Amino acid sequence: MSRYTSMEHLRFLLFEIHGVQDLFAYDYFSHLDNEQVAMMIDAAKALADRDMYPYFKEMDEQPVHYAGKGVVWSHPQLRTIILNAAAQSWIGGESSFDLGGLQLPQMVYNAAHHIFQAANNGTQGYISLTTGAARLIQNYGSPEQISTFVPPMFEGRWQGTMALTEPQAGSSLTDITTVATPTDAGYYQIKGQKIFISAGEHSACDNFVHLTLARIAGAPPGLKGVSLFIIPKHRPVTGGELEYNDVFCAGDYQKLGQRAYATTHLVFGEQDDCRGWLVGEPNKGLSYMFQLMNEARIGVGQTAASVSMAAYQASLQYARERSQGRKVGEKDPLKPPVPIIQHPDVQRMLLTQKSIVEGALSLAMECNRLADLAHVAEGAEQRRNWLLLEILTPIVKTYSAEQGNRSTSLAIQVLGGYGYTMDFPVQQYYRDLRIMAIYEGTTGIQSLDLLGRKMTMENGEALIQLAQYMGITISAAAAHPALQEHAAILQSELDRFGKTLQQLVKYAQAGEMERYLADASVFMEMAGYVVIAWQWLKMAVAAQKALDSGDFSAQSKSFYEGKVHTMKFFFRYELPHAAACAKILLEPGQLTMLEEDGLLD
Amino acid sequence: MSRYTSMEHLRFLLFEIHGVQDLFAYDYFSHLDNEQVAMMIDAAKALADRDMYPYFKEMDEQPVHYAGKGVVWSHPQLRTIILNAAAQSWIGGESSFDLGGLQLPQMVYNAAHHIFQAANNGTQGYISLTTGAARLIQNYGSPEQISTFVPPMFEGRWQGTMALTEPQAGSSLTDITTVATPTDAGYYQIKGQKIFISAGEHSACDNFVHLTLARIAGAPPGLKGVSLFIIPKHRPVTGGELEYNDVFCAGDYQKLGQRAYATTHLVFGEQDDCRGWLVGEPNKGLSYMFQLMNEARIGVGQTAASVSMAAYQASLQYARERSQGRKVGEKDPLKPPVPIIQHPDVQRMLLTQKSIVEGALSLAMECNRLADLAHVAEGAEQRRNWLLLEILTPIVKTYSAEQGNRSTSLAIQVLGGYGYTMDFPVQQYYRDLRIMAIYEGTTGIQSLDLLGRKMTMENGEALIQLAQYMGITISAAAAHPALQEHAAILQSELDRFGKTLQQLVKYAQAGEMERYLADASVFMEMAGYVVIAWQWLKMAVAAQKALDSGDFSAQSKSFYEGKVHTMKFFFRYELPHAAACAKILLEPGQLTMLEEDGLLD
Repeated sequence: MSRYTSMEHLRFLLFEIHGVQDLFAYDYFSHLDNEQVAMMIDAAKALADRDMYPYFKEMDEQPVHYAGKGVVWSHPQLRTIILNAAAQSWIGGESSFDLGGLQLPQMVYNAAHHIFQAANNGTQGYISLTTGAARLIQNYGSPEQISTFVPPMFEGRWQGTMALTEPQAGSSLTDITTVATPTDAGYYQIKGQKIFISAGEHSACDNFVHLTLARIAGAPPGLKGVSLFIIPKHRPVTGGELEYNDVFCAGDYQKLGQRAYATTHLVFGEQDDCRGWLVGEPNKGLSYMFQLMNEARIGVGQTAASVSMAAYQASLQYARERSQGRKVGEKDPLKPPVPIIQHPDVQRMLLTQKSIVEGALSLAMECNRLADLAHVAEGAEQRRNWLLLEILTPIVKTYSAEQGNRSTSLAIQVLGGYGYTMDFPVQQYYRDLRIMAIYEGTTGIQSLDLLGRKMTMENGEALIQLAQYMGITISAAAAHPALQEHAAILQSELDRFGKTLQQLVKYAQAGEMERYLADASVFMEMAGYVVIAWQWLKMAVAAQKALDSGDFSAQSKSFYEGKVHTMKFFFRYELPHAAACAKILLEPGQLTMLEEDGLLD
Repeated sequence: MSRYTSMEHLRFLLFEIHGVQDLFAYDYFSHLDNEQVAMMIDAAKALADRDMYPYFKEMDEQPVHYAGKGVVWSHPQLRTIILNAAAQSWIGGESSFDLGGLQLPQMVYNAAHHIFQAANNGTQGYISLTTGAARLIQNYGSPEQISTFVPPMFEGRWQGTMALTEPQAGSSLTDITTVATPTDAGYYQIKGQKIFISAGEHSACDNFVHLTLARIAGAPPGLKGVSLFIIPKHRPVTGGELEYNDVFCAGDYQKLGQRAYATTHLVFGEQDDCRGWLVGEPNKGLSYMFQLMNEARIGVGQTAASVSMAAYQASLQYARERSQGRKVGEKDPLKPPVPIIQHPDVQRMLLTQKSIVEGALSLAMECNRLADLAHVAEGAEQRRNWLLLEILTPIVKTYSAEQGNRSTSLAIQVLGGYGYTMDFPVQQYYRDLRIMAIYEGTTGIQSLDLLGRKMTMENGEALIQLAQYMGITISAAAAHPALQEHAAILQSELDRFGKTLQQLVKYAQAGEMERYLADASVFMEMAGYVVIAWQWLKMAVAAQKALDSGDFSAQSKSFYEGKVHTMKFFFRYELPHAAACAKILLEPGQLTMLEEDGLLD
């Protein structure tokens, strides 16, 4: 079987960089140890090797599709995947013991899911979406809602979804029009349509639990009038029977990639018999949904990193096996060709991928750790971790998605003409990856969130916390002679980032909010370079420590050398573009607030 | 019908920027005038509107494919397209009168082909490949070869191809092993296999003329032993009959994009009855082929620009029609949503595309003009234009392909979730475009050509000529108060480029050729920014002149304002990345000449 991820890198992140073992000091996770975690991850890998990766290509070639009359055909293997992942606790495992879970950290859950994402990204979403939907019910639903809906979701028999987007509204949740009319019977009558609903209908589950944003009749306009409902496709009735709940799948979308993953159009209440159950309080739907949304954003970022990882591994293997051309200066055509990995340009393409992929995955794992700490820590520590998570969420989502496009494109390029054919998987990774900058809020939306909300939230405290946190890594690096130079570079890039923000904030202070936010995407790009440089320095510190000590019990010497080398590569080849972003951001005037769009003809 | 290119921009390039009318002063082109050219281009547009664009999606969904026993199925419309394009002289039109052509400039031929590329890129290649193959026969073939093969090619009945790549050799033409054994009958017996042969077999033509690189039995090893042969699928025999020539199509490649364009695997001489006719002298095949190859490289660059143009137009139209969200600061959810083109981030994505697409197309047209002048001019003028063409060829190919990936990706992003569905064409443009950085020499190969050959050729004279040529534009811009600032910026970027090269050349002078060339792709990226900035300044000078004079007889005022605006956008948002490239290139040491690839694990 081809290699689709690096278990060595995953263990390095878990145990050496982001210290999952730190979590075991908290009561909630005290039942765990490193050995257990390692075994669980290995079990997930075995499951992915057996059930997921072998079907990756086939499920792309036989895509999930609308078969008429509300039916969505999905590959038969999908049911096996969902049930076996559920049985191995990769749906409910992070839930608490009292709710039937294993109290696993997000770090562990998402380490397993990284493997699934790399093995078969189009199927992993079914599992993680059910996980997120179930947790939302657990956190905000009534005891009855929890006992009714969560157990079959944990078993993988019922599919959870999040239903936000409507045809007329797109990313603009303000404009949601699905209506929930109260009844005396404890439920609401639902009427409306939702589009782009992932996993909204397929053949692998018996029921669907749609966590749906709708507006209670008479609710205030805008976001303040949006509530959250549980709308099952089949509603449970007395005696445990299921009854059709007038949730009709009217069609699907065929997509560029992720063709194993159903994207559906749902109609609620066409026959005026669709019931929804309010979750929590009325008009608070958006705040509840954002819990799931934030997790989903980190999940999308991690998926982008995972898919790029699989593409990297495929191109690395090819570069080692394929001989072509000779070294520069070798004029003798009778000398045999060399493996293309010996060509500097191929090494450049591989190292670019490695630096993006491993850096992005490290940031995702950082976020998973912060989510765990924000969950179990208390007081100032809890708040600090929550602030860091808030500021890093849009960055991990966007960096991984945007640079993942580049990274998977380079994987194709390493293979040359073969990479463009359907015979090799790299083109599929390239297609699958492209949605990640759109799912769960586009890059434009993430960038507005970063610059418009997260940078200024709590009087800028999230950024202050981030700078301090990065400072710890910079200090640690400065203590190693081999890393001093790079510690100084990161410090100066961080300073540049801060000064750039200070300049931009002047627009906000002057009330020019549109101008302040006009280049938010460029600001996001800059943030990505700086934050990933930090992750690389963090990895290099650990690797250098191992190299200095000569302790190669966890990883090989060349593994650690590779980390230091890739850090240097990222600082040299990627980070300089942060200065270009700063230059763009600091230019006076603006060119993207045209009132007359005829100039674009 | 949706708009897939800007005829205004095309006419602006032809008549206002690159002055096709200048060519009419040369005898060879003196039969032409502007009106004729404009009419021909309009006729090409009508043909593309009728025969090509309406089939763009359908030919992707019903791809050309191997149907067994040597047969490749192609969409029935393909024959119509080829025959009608041939009838309108878009295969043979650039040929001289005495050979049955219309003596059209490359500029005119390629203006029409730009329209075809934008309308249906997967079919345009069939036509241009036959054009190039026919010209190669005209230039180096015998009178008999010309009279036998060229006329049916001009009529679109016979397909021309170029057959270089072999399974074991890939980009490395040194390693070609197809053998040509001389006979006493004036032909050679051919035996060998070729892969990735575009248009190598399909159902729309009656015969195939493969211009094939092979090694005459006993020829010296390497490139010096490669000869060029005409190998028809069916060989003409006395009486005008055709006889099967043992050229068998053994299969095809299904690809990520360009699914209307056949990519085939050919076997010559499986039954020992394949005859080839030597073109020109033995062992000079590569130099002949490079004439076609250089044209094909410009053609690929132009195709990339054209496909990106079509994607840009699709996303521009969508951005005007789709309403979503409100302006920053608008808090009232009852106010209607605005067209997304009003959002600065959408304008940024559109202007990024426009600046890439129109800049790249301008550079392609610059190259077409240089090719025309290199053809008809004499002495120093001829040489100067040839040198400029040599240095710009790898740049136009690579800039358009690499930045085209970004540009078409932004087109998807403008459409959001819809852009990822098969219901909209932007995903097809994205897929089609991805091959352009691989066709006719990958980006890595082009970059080695630019830095390793073109920069130093004739003692660096090509670069000197380019700098002087750019200097004309800079001086012209400096004369306009509105453009002085940008003239100075381009001059300083040009200086930075020159200094960067000087530093790099030191490695070459010290004999460290591998180090010299290791970052050739980064050098290429830098060259692209600088050269496209020059094209934009050139366009801005013409536009500013029109704005100053108030003469809007050729184009509207907002059209010219759009050019100046987009120039400013390119200088602000794209050009700063050239400095980042310089920083990367000037770093001492190297990170991509690893001898131990274990570091990449």
